[in-house]
Amino acid sequence: MLKLYDLAGAENDRRFSPYCWRIKMALAHKGLEVETIPWRFTDKDVIAFSKQGRVPVLVDGDQWVNDSWAIADYLEATYPETPSLFGGPSGRALSRFHANWVDAVMSPFLFKMVVVDIFRHVDPKDRDYFRKSREERFGKPLEDVVVDRDKDVVAFREALAPLRLTLRAQPFLGGERPLYADYVVLGGFQWCRCISDFKLLEPNDPIYAWRQRMLELFGGLAGKAKGYPV
Amino acid sequence: MLKLYDLAGAENDRRFSPYCWRIKMALAHKGLEVETIPWRFTDKDVIAFSKQGRVPVLVDGDQWVNDSWAIADYLEATYPETPSLFGGPSGRALSRFHANWVDAVMSPFLFKMVVVDIFRHVDPKDRDYFRKSREERFGKPLEDVVVDRDKDVVAFREALAPLRLTLRAQPFLGGERPLYADYVVLGGFQWCRCISDFKLLEPNDPIYAWRQRMLELFGGLAGKAKGYPV
Repeated sequence: MLKLYDLAGAENDRRFSPYCWRIKMALAHKGLEVETIPWRFTDKDVIAFSKQGRVPVLVDGDQWVNDSWAIADYLEATYPETPSLFGGPSGRALSRFHANWVDAVMSPFLFKMVVVDIFRHVDPKDRDYFRKSREERFGKPLEDVVVDRDKDVVAFREALAPLRLTLRAQPFLGGERPLYADYVVLGGFQWCRCISDFKLLEPNDPIYAWRQRMLELFGGLAGKAKGYPV
Repeated sequence: MLKLYDLAGAENDRRFSPYCWRIKMALAHKGLEVETIPWRFTDKDVIAFSKQGRVPVLVDGDQWVNDSWAIADYLEATYPETPSLFGGPSGRALSRFHANWVDAVMSPFLFKMVVVDIFRHVDPKDRDYFRKSREERFGKPLEDVVVDRDKDVVAFREALAPLRLTLRAQPFLGGERPLYADYVVLGGFQWCRCISDFKLLEPNDPIYAWRQRMLELFGGLAGKAKGYPV
């Protein structure tokens, strides 16, 4: 069976990595079973075999792959008989833009709004590492980063305009059915849902309804995972 | 032969509509010949048959289609033997996000930076219409809209991060070859190139190199059109 090293918080079943969620959704999309192994930020030695220090890392028999985009590629190439994550080579190329939009626009906003909530949920052994590395990145205490989040969320919702317009025209980024692009965006929302009760979306937003559909996919894989109501 | 009503400026061969450029590139992608008919903002009667007042309007025998996305769909359905603009139904669905990103993020920036340059190039008979309608939209004189463009262009370049990251990974948004998503983004840059010498990109930006490749496609269709050096 496939194994996935999956970021966990203080509790084994609090799995909040947005990149790991991309892959857990992708595996479910393909109908592939996976055993997820809880992993913490400081468990660098556990995944040292992958020659780097971040999850997701997928292990398939005697092979391993790290980096969510590379894992999606690996799954697409290795299990061609399962439903495609991209809908073909053009869809794969086009999906890169969605992934880069999430990384460059959506994730920085989310991080700024929930970083203290992440800190509260990481494993005790990860706390010093998390605070130190993230405070270096922001150049200030985590508590100061989130102080404007009631204003930031307004700008965040405005920045989601391309997503909103698209989901007004069709049920998923992939069209009638979700594709990898949907899982990439969901990863961001699910990351927050797992560790924070901060309300990111207004209930009348088409993105809210899309997120509900995403949370319900695959028997509620994302929606039933430990986290907060949206 | 196909006919396309195409926005022109004071000179018949200054064709600056970003939406028309999407379609001219799409037609060339499909190897379809087209006769473009210069049209001005106030020529509402000329396209009254299309029951609306904006270009592009494509006429194919006794049929007509307006709205660039609908025209792309029409071409894809009507000429299935020609190269696809989307690479399949998934690619079509995924491309909506690119189009909405251009409309919601890229175009408002561009408009704010070059609206006075547009005004300078519109046909004399369009000038009053253009100034009045655009000043109503902005709530101030056109000359005041562009006053901060040296600052705006810095924010614009930052907002292009998802595009830049994607074009670092692959030559076109469509992958190894351009697709409709590329033509949508090019439309924005070409709109400005046709009416303004304002420098939107730094030469060392991967987006700059991509734009060069786009301008050279189809024998320099976009690059040789009347406009300014980039």
